[in-house]
Amino acid sequence: MKLLRFGAPGSEKPGLMDASGQIRDLSGVIADFDAAALSPDGLARLAALDTASLPVVPADTRLGPCVPRPSHFIAVGLNYVDHAHESNMPIPSEPIVFSKAPSSLSGPTDPVLIPAGSQKSDWEVEIAFVIGTPAFRVTEAEALDHVAGYCICNDVSERSYQLERGGQWLKGKSLPTFGPVGPWLVTRDEVGDVQNLGLWLDVNGERRQTGTTSVMIFGIAHLVSYLSQFMRLEAGDIVTTGTPPGVGMGMKPPMFLKAGDVMTLGIEGLGEQRQEVREFA
Amino acid sequence: MKLLRFGAPGSEKPGLMDASGQIRDLSGVIADFDAAALSPDGLARLAALDTASLPVVPADTRLGPCVPRPSHFIAVGLNYVDHAHESNMPIPSEPIVFSKAPSSLSGPTDPVLIPAGSQKSDWEVEIAFVIGTPAFRVTEAEALDHVAGYCICNDVSERSYQLERGGQWLKGKSLPTFGPVGPWLVTRDEVGDVQNLGLWLDVNGERRQTGTTSVMIFGIAHLVSYLSQFMRLEAGDIVTTGTPPGVGMGMKPPMFLKAGDVMTLGIEGLGEQRQEVREFA
Repeated sequence: MKLLRFGAPGSEKPGLMDASGQIRDLSGVIADFDAAALSPDGLARLAALDTASLPVVPADTRLGPCVPRPSHFIAVGLNYVDHAHESNMPIPSEPIVFSKAPSSLSGPTDPVLIPAGSQKSDWEVEIAFVIGTPAFRVTEAEALDHVAGYCICNDVSERSYQLERGGQWLKGKSLPTFGPVGPWLVTRDEVGDVQNLGLWLDVNGERRQTGTTSVMIFGIAHLVSYLSQFMRLEAGDIVTTGTPPGVGMGMKPPMFLKAGDVMTLGIEGLGEQRQEVREFA
Repeated sequence: MKLLRFGAPGSEKPGLMDASGQIRDLSGVIADFDAAALSPDGLARLAALDTASLPVVPADTRLGPCVPRPSHFIAVGLNYVDHAHESNMPIPSEPIVFSKAPSSLSGPTDPVLIPAGSQKSDWEVEIAFVIGTPAFRVTEAEALDHVAGYCICNDVSERSYQLERGGQWLKGKSLPTFGPVGPWLVTRDEVGDVQNLGLWLDVNGERRQTGTTSVMIFGIAHLVSYLSQFMRLEAGDIVTTGTPPGVGMGMKPPMFLKAGDVMTLGIEGLGEQRQEVREFA
């Protein structure tokens, strides 16, 4: 299934994209994609629905983040060899883990708002996974059973906040609109081999990032198991897994986002996002 | 007011401690301390209640975390000069900010569970503040208006996870039970000068930490304003503000927690916590 949320910011309803590409309204079935809905049983109930009987939603309706605000929005850094090189950082021996403020979450086509005067706002196309059943100290073999599905995340970053304001990356990853996720949460059964998907990102139509999840340093099953050694992952938690090469910080000379820029990005099987960059009013 | 939550883990009800020290049940008035209840209007409504008319809760009832699981559990590092020294880290020029997994939240007298074989689990008494109204890009002058109240937080830390497992402190701060908060959320009006409170922590009855919020490097008004430049703080978010000297890592030789140890800790006007240390089963 391709699960999604539609409607005005803050009052999105749950829905899905049916086989013909129409948006169908799930709000008569579930209130939102909460822990119950994201559990294996909850997803099985949705999969058993006759989608043709669900109300159709106009195609031009805004899509919100494909999952509600999580209890934890986790990000993995430097998880592609080439991106570590372009960032002038060593290949990590263990996953680098930090948080994004959950209030950074936004929809796949919402504008990205950068601070007026920001000199170093940057893009990062990433594949994110969403937890379906809580995971604590799980093995790599059982890890993917805890994943409800996958989505695109643009891990928007203000590099000066991230790297020049006194340690810990959280500061540069957390502004409102710095976490577009969606358009869909694609359930695990529809994704095939998650470690063999192409990723790309364009700025103003020019290709900046090209990658494949096949060269991630730490794969998704490993990340679930690894993170669960340090914390309990809860249903609905979002983990975005790192970006391939081609971020603005790594260009020679570096190139960063400015008002009016348009980012388009996609991952094989997971759809596309499009964000216009604006400055905070 | 001294707001609290009582009952079994995961199904706590809201309550308050009345002037005579009795716990009163608020579950007939509000469902929990959500954004509406923590807002200035919500707190004013609670303050206007005739507490004598509320059901009494037995004094031996377990207290849970004094606020529900937040959308973001933020921590500030190295915010006391002497603690930075004992940690062999430079005095930060700006606040060091990281996240604790919200799933680390626990009650003020719940056991603290450390990993079997943990060599470096450590204590940190801290004053935490809870956001009452969302704050984004607020000035220091208006910052405290966004704070609902204050509570004790033991920012329990596994130092090897925090410092020896590849950057970013989140990993060492996030195990379940590593975030006891409470016993009460003391509303701002009852705290007086929050930058002049004594803090202390004992392990097995021996004093380990003694401090005062008067020597915090970055005071609470500054922290609210500062954080709000990087992210939108939401109602219910918990920010724990750093620890005074006396952590185990700073002792010569270092001393860390082991199963059977008992931590007791308190802050002037905010009550006391007590946690027995156990190992995960």
